[in-house]
Amino acid sequence: MKPIALDAMGGDYAPQETVAGALLAAKEGIPVVLVGQTPAVKAELQQQGGDLPIVEAPEYIAMEDAATDVRKKRGASINVCMELVKKGEASAVVAMGHTGATLASALFNLGRVQGVERPTLLIEMPSEKGRVYLTDGGANVDCKPHWLVQFAVMATAYAEAQGVKNPSVGLLSIGEEEGKGNALTNETYPLLKTTPGVRFHGNVEGRDIFKGTTDIVVTDGYTGNVVLKLSEGEARTLLKWVREALTSSPLARLGGLLVRGALQGLRAKMDPAEYGAMPLLGVEGPVFIGHGSADARAVRNAIRKAKSVVEAGLVERVRASIAQLTPAES
Amino acid sequence: MKPIALDAMGGDYAPQETVAGALLAAKEGIPVVLVGQTPAVKAELQQQGGDLPIVEAPEYIAMEDAATDVRKKRGASINVCMELVKKGEASAVVAMGHTGATLASALFNLGRVQGVERPTLLIEMPSEKGRVYLTDGGANVDCKPHWLVQFAVMATAYAEAQGVKNPSVGLLSIGEEEGKGNALTNETYPLLKTTPGVRFHGNVEGRDIFKGTTDIVVTDGYTGNVVLKLSEGEARTLLKWVREALTSSPLARLGGLLVRGALQGLRAKMDPAEYGAMPLLGVEGPVFIGHGSADARAVRNAIRKAKSVVEAGLVERVRASIAQLTPAES
Repeated sequence: MKPIALDAMGGDYAPQETVAGALLAAKEGIPVVLVGQTPAVKAELQQQGGDLPIVEAPEYIAMEDAATDVRKKRGASINVCMELVKKGEASAVVAMGHTGATLASALFNLGRVQGVERPTLLIEMPSEKGRVYLTDGGANVDCKPHWLVQFAVMATAYAEAQGVKNPSVGLLSIGEEEGKGNALTNETYPLLKTTPGVRFHGNVEGRDIFKGTTDIVVTDGYTGNVVLKLSEGEARTLLKWVREALTSSPLARLGGLLVRGALQGLRAKMDPAEYGAMPLLGVEGPVFIGHGSADARAVRNAIRKAKSVVEAGLVERVRASIAQLTPAES
Repeated sequence: MKPIALDAMGGDYAPQETVAGALLAAKEGIPVVLVGQTPAVKAELQQQGGDLPIVEAPEYIAMEDAATDVRKKRGASINVCMELVKKGEASAVVAMGHTGATLASALFNLGRVQGVERPTLLIEMPSEKGRVYLTDGGANVDCKPHWLVQFAVMATAYAEAQGVKNPSVGLLSIGEEEGKGNALTNETYPLLKTTPGVRFHGNVEGRDIFKGTTDIVVTDGYTGNVVLKLSEGEARTLLKWVREALTSSPLARLGGLLVRGALQGLRAKMDPAEYGAMPLLGVEGPVFIGHGSADARAVRNAIRKAKSVVEAGLVERVRASIAQLTPAES
């Protein structure tokens, strides 16, 4: 396997946490190349006592830069990562943080899979059944019905690449019956019913996401992004309230000590870092975008995920399933 | 105060829970009139050993009926409730369950406040600051920018009636800066900046809802309904996982016994029944819609809320604040 290109300069704690995460992944035998300003990356590697290949990138996209800056800063690390994949020298891109810039750079350097109208960000969330994939996570705010159909197709390919057999797809709406929803969902519903390769369950509601009613939930990127951030925020608030309850009296504090271990598993399950990164589906190469606030473990998890997806032939799967669509659907 | 008209036939557990809830409210000195099929309601009152005035309604809207059935079943209990308010014989309507039918009945019988384009359902949710009001909760799936402006105005009037001083309003979007959002939010943002009587904070994200960044969050009814159901579903799942963690080992079970009391407060805080009911704002009378699965306590809480809102002059406040808008905004 060609190495995974990690944007060493991306995220709030780069290059410290990116380098640390890359070293953790390398220890597991995953080949990684660090892309960034060589002096800074080299210094960080020395500091941490590790050694990994570096590919020089003279510039980088800061969190406060605009997504379109990837066109001005041609030598930005995220662009160099994409070029490595394009030239076949890396097998995937992993970048923490600037979602807009990574999306723009992927489109600019790798381009779309033939037939794909809009690439989509796929979010992985915990559910009572294990996990649920949500598309679109915020790449496309105002969507057309046939874009949502393509999101469903690409998410199905991704879920299958992750080992989900015959994944079911739900359309996020505000009632179960066909016709309960907004203009977008009402136009999308009949299309999804007849899309080849998609096992369409019908509408699902907000409550079905954590219940895990379907493996995949499809919605527009505005709603998907609200769902992602609400679910993370609610988990944070609820776990904070649990913590507060467990220190609210001497008796609760004693009980809290006894249940601490049991609750840690739950905290990990709700931690976005566990899921590592969101794949960008529909571009000509595996691209993963992680949280800007990623620590070393989150970076390692993102690299792990990229590896599993590359091995499962994600881009080939997406190409094949999009090619199955009739021109009207694609 | 004129009595509150309770639709005794509405909800999954009517008339048992509606009658029980009405008796609880009456015990607190809140005047309630039960509206429904007299024999069934009377039998239930006798069964529970209580006594309350009954207004006969020969029909009722079942949960599986269509919202438009309120026009066919003119003698439905929900219609009779609205007529009592219209005639000045009741001060508010409280109905558990069929949101669409209650909305249709309110529009049909009471009509809209002058200048209001679309009435809105207001959702009350817990937050780290206490509570947050979300509008629209699902009455209007596809919205125009100036409808959202009116929702903000009406929600402000409601929050003030509930004792919130100078409530702040956030526009639900996917980034904090103006211009980060979809077509609807991008058109709504500049309008909200100049709306008289609205303290506009700017965009808020999904994570800001539970954080309580603003007192009020404005969005379209599709997104609002997804937010409502996701937040309820996630709370249910997380508390279930907490419960499971607390029985996962003998040690955790022992600790779980000690913290049970402390966690009960949290469970109550996340229980939708605590909030009782959603007000329907913008119709010519105070109307509250509760969960279809409401038990007696939820019914009582809904009646309590209706009382406090009536006493605070909600409809007059909504009228006054909508009248302040220029024709372009209303």
